[in-house]
Amino acid sequence: EIDPDRLYDRFEEFNRIGATEQGGVNRPALSDANRSARDRLCEWFREAGLEVTIDEMGNVFGRREGERDDLPPVLIGSHVDSQYNGGQYDGVIGVLGGLEIVEALSDAGERTRRPIEVVSWSNEEGVRFQPDMLGSGVFAGAFDLEFALSRADGEGNTFGEELERIGYAGDEPCRPRDLHCYFELHVEQGPRLERRGLSVAAVEGVYGFAWLSVTFEGMADHAGPTPMHEREDALVAASDVVGAVRRLTASGGEDLVGTVGSLEVEPDAINVIPETVELTVDLRSHDDDVVSSAVDRIRREVEWAAEREGIDYRLEELMRIEPRTFDTDCVETVEAAIEAAGYEGTRLVSGAGHDASYLDDVCPTGMVFVPSLEGVSHRESEFTEWSDVVAGVEVLCEVVRQKAAE
Amino acid sequence: EIDPDRLYDRFEEFNRIGATEQGGVNRPALSDANRSARDRLCEWFREAGLEVTIDEMGNVFGRREGERDDLPPVLIGSHVDSQYNGGQYDGVIGVLGGLEIVEALSDAGERTRRPIEVVSWSNEEGVRFQPDMLGSGVFAGAFDLEFALSRADGEGNTFGEELERIGYAGDEPCRPRDLHCYFELHVEQGPRLERRGLSVAAVEGVYGFAWLSVTFEGMADHAGPTPMHEREDALVAASDVVGAVRRLTASGGEDLVGTVGSLEVEPDAINVIPETVELTVDLRSHDDDVVSSAVDRIRREVEWAAEREGIDYRLEELMRIEPRTFDTDCVETVEAAIEAAGYEGTRLVSGAGHDASYLDDVCPTGMVFVPSLEGVSHRESEFTEWSDVVAGVEVLCEVVRQKAAE
Ligand SMILES: NC(=O)NCCC(=O)O
Ligand SMILES: NC(=O)NCCC(=O)O
Repeated sequence: EIDPDRLYDRFEEFNRIGATEQGGVNRPALSDANRSARDRLCEWFREAGLEVTIDEMGNVFGRREGERDDLPPVLIGSHVDSQYNGGQYDGVIGVLGGLEIVEALSDAGERTRRPIEVVSWSNEEGVRFQPDMLGSGVFAGAFDLEFALSRADGEGNTFGEELERIGYAGDEPCRPRDLHCYFELHVEQGPRLERRGLSVAAVEGVYGFAWLSVTFEGMADHAGPTPMHEREDALVAASDVVGAVRRLTASGGEDLVGTVGSLEVEPDAINVIPETVELTVDLRSHDDDVVSSAVDRIRREVEWAAEREGIDYRLEELMRIEPRTFDTDCVETVEAAIEAAGYEGTRLVSGAGHDASYLDDVCPTGMVFVPSLEGVSHRESEFTEWSDVVAGVEVLCEVVRQKAAE
Repeated sequence: EIDPDRLYDRFEEFNRIGATEQGGVNRPALSDANRSARDRLCEWFREAGLEVTIDEMGNVFGRREGERDDLPPVLIGSHVDSQYNGGQYDGVIGVLGGLEIVEALSDAGERTRRPIEVVSWSNEEGVRFQPDMLGSGVFAGAFDLEFALSRADGEGNTFGEELERIGYAGDEPCRPRDLHCYFELHVEQGPRLERRGLSVAAVEGVYGFAWLSVTFEGMADHAGPTPMHEREDALVAASDVVGAVRRLTASGGEDLVGTVGSLEVEPDAINVIPETVELTVDLRSHDDDVVSSAVDRIRREVEWAAEREGIDYRLEELMRIEPRTFDTDCVETVEAAIEAAGYEGTRLVSGAGHDASYLDDVCPTGMVFVPSLEGVSHRESEFTEWSDVVAGVEVLCEVVRQKAAE
C-alpha cells in the first residue's frame, strides 16, 4: 500500500544532495547541503498537502490534518543531517518513510482520527555541534533554547547564527507540546539484525551515554635534547586514557561500550613533544549505574595519567543522557505489526542515541529498526537492503494507522 | 671586537619577519616568511661585501675572499627556517653570528689566509618537508637532489616547486666540495648548560636518530551499537605504540630518547570509531646500536598492536642518520677558544640534529653551543641571554680566525 518506487526515487534524489565520491553523503547540521535537503523536504511536504512549520530550533514539521484535528497528533520522523562523509540511510529513511506513510494514506483516501505529523529534527548527529540530538532535546525540555543556539562548531560559528544563515530559524516555539505518541524508523547501526537474518525489529529502549572532553596541557619541547625524565608529554597521558577506556569496557559490565573517537595533538610535529592533546570519550550502557561508574573511573584515569606525567588537565562532561526504556504499549504495537506483516518479531536495545530518547520524555514513544549491512554506520559504506527499508516503512505505517485511530 | 649592538639590531629585525603574537617566529622552510628572511640576509651579505651564491637546494652562501683565495674556505653558518611557531634563536644566531664575524674581521681591516663563507642551509627543521637537514644533506651527498626536490609538504607542494616559487632555486651545483672545516653556533635546546651555569660549550658530537611514520588502518563504525569485540579501532593500536615508545626509553640505554610528536585521527569524530591513525616516532641516541634496536623494537610493537586489534598497518622509515663524533682537533679548538675567552670549558653531545652532522661527512667539523632557558626550544618561549649569544659568537670568531690562518 506504500509505494516503494516513490520512496526510492526520493531517497535517490536525496542521496545526490551532498553526495560524496565514495557513495555517502556529507550533510552535517546546518551546512549548505543540509539546507538543500531541508528545502527539498519542505517542497515534498507541501506537494503532499502537509502544512509546514519550522520551530526556533529549525525542526521541520509537516502536518496532515485529522478528523479530530484538536486531538494530540501522532508524530513520526527522524533527521536529515549526516555525519561528515556519513551514510545515506541514517536518519533519512525515518523522515522519507514518514512522508511516504502520510502520502500512502492520502492516496488511499484514508482519513485518520488524529492528525499525523512528520518531523525532521535538527542536529541529531552531534558532530558539528555538540551535544547531539539538540533539536529534539530542546523540544523535550532537556536543554534551554539559549544554550542550544549558543553551541559553536569548530570554527566558532554558533548554532543560532548558522540556523539564520540557512534560513531555518523558525517562529514556532520549540518546547514540549501534547503528542499522542512518537515513532521513529531508523537503521540499527549495529550487526545484530543482519546476523540473525531478520528484516525488522521493535526497539525496547536506548542506551544512556556520557560524552567527555578531556584536555591535557603538557609542555612542548625538542624531541632530541629534552631528557626523558623532564618531559611533560600530553600525548603520553592521552594514550593512557585511550588504553584505560578500552580496558574498562572489559570490566564494566556486559553492555558497556567506550570509545575515544576524536584526538587532536598540538603542535603535532615530528620532533616536538606534544604540548596539548584534546580528546573525547564516549561511554554507553543500558544500565545508568554502569555509565556513571564508567565516568567516575575515567575521571580518575585522567587524573592519574596527568599526575604520572606531571601535567595539567581539564575534564568537561559534554553530554549525559539517561538510558530509556520505551512505553510497553508502543513496543508491543510495533512487535505486533511486525508479526502481522509476516516477519519474525524481535526486540533490540539501541546502542546509538536517537531523537526518540528525548521524545520518550514527552509522550509514549517507540522505534522500528531495520538492519545495517555488517552493522556499519557513520561511514559512507552504510547500506540496508531496500526490501528491509520497505519492510520497516510498512510496519511503521501499520503502527501509525492504529495509533492515529485511537 | 665583534659588535654586539649591530648583531642585536639584525636579530631584532629578523624577529619581525614572521613574528608570532607569543614572541616567536613562524618561518617554516620555503614559506613566504622564510623567503623574506632569505631576502634580508642576502642584502646584508651584499652590504658586507660578500659574494652571494645560491645552490640548487636554495642553500645561500656569502663568501669573503682570502689572501689565498684558491684554498678551501672555512665555512660557518646554520639555518633561518623555523618550526611552526618556533623560537627566535634556533638557527638564526648561527647565521647572523657568522655574518657578524666576517664583518668584524673587515671592520678591523683583518685579512685572512683562507676565504670564509657564511651559509644558511635550507629546511633544517624538517617540519614542513621531511627529512630534516635536507639542504646540508644533499650538499654532503647523503640524499640525491631529485629525492630532495620531490619531497612534498602536507598539501602536496614539492620542495622543488616551492623553491622556484620563492625564487631560491639557484644554479650552483649542490654537492660536496673542498672545505677546510665547518663550524656551527647553535642554541643547545636542552637544559644542561643552564643547569650548570655555563655560557658556552664545545659540542663533541650529535645523536643519531630514526624517524618512523606509522599508519594503522582500522574500520570506522558507530561508537554506540558496535560491540567491543568487533571493533577495529586504529587509535587503540596507536596509543599502544605511544606507550611502548615511552616504556622503551626506560629500558633502551642511558641516552635513548623517544617521542611520538605527531598523531592524526580519521574521521576524528566523537561518536565514530577511529578508522585511520597516522603517527610519527622519533628515536635518538649517541649509540647507533641503541637506535637500531629501538627501531626494531618499535617495528615489533607496531606489529603487535595491529595484531591485537586485528587491523592493518604500514611502517615507513622517513629518516635515519647515524650519530656523529666531531673531529678531535675542531672540538679542542673550540674548547681552547672558550677557555681563552675566560669561560669555563665544557663538552656536550647534541640531542638535536644539526646541519653540522652532514658537514662532518665533508670536512672536519665542530659546533659551539650556548644555553637555552629551561632547555626550551621549538617553542615561542625559546630564550637565550644576549650575553651568552655574544659569548658564543666571540668564541666562534676566535676559532674562525685560527682556522682561516691555517
Ligand atoms: N543514531 C545516531 O547515529 N545518533 C547519533 C548520536 C549517537 O548515538 O552518537
Ligand atoms: N636543531 C634542530 O632543532 N634540528 C631539527 C632537527 C631535529 O633535531 O629534530
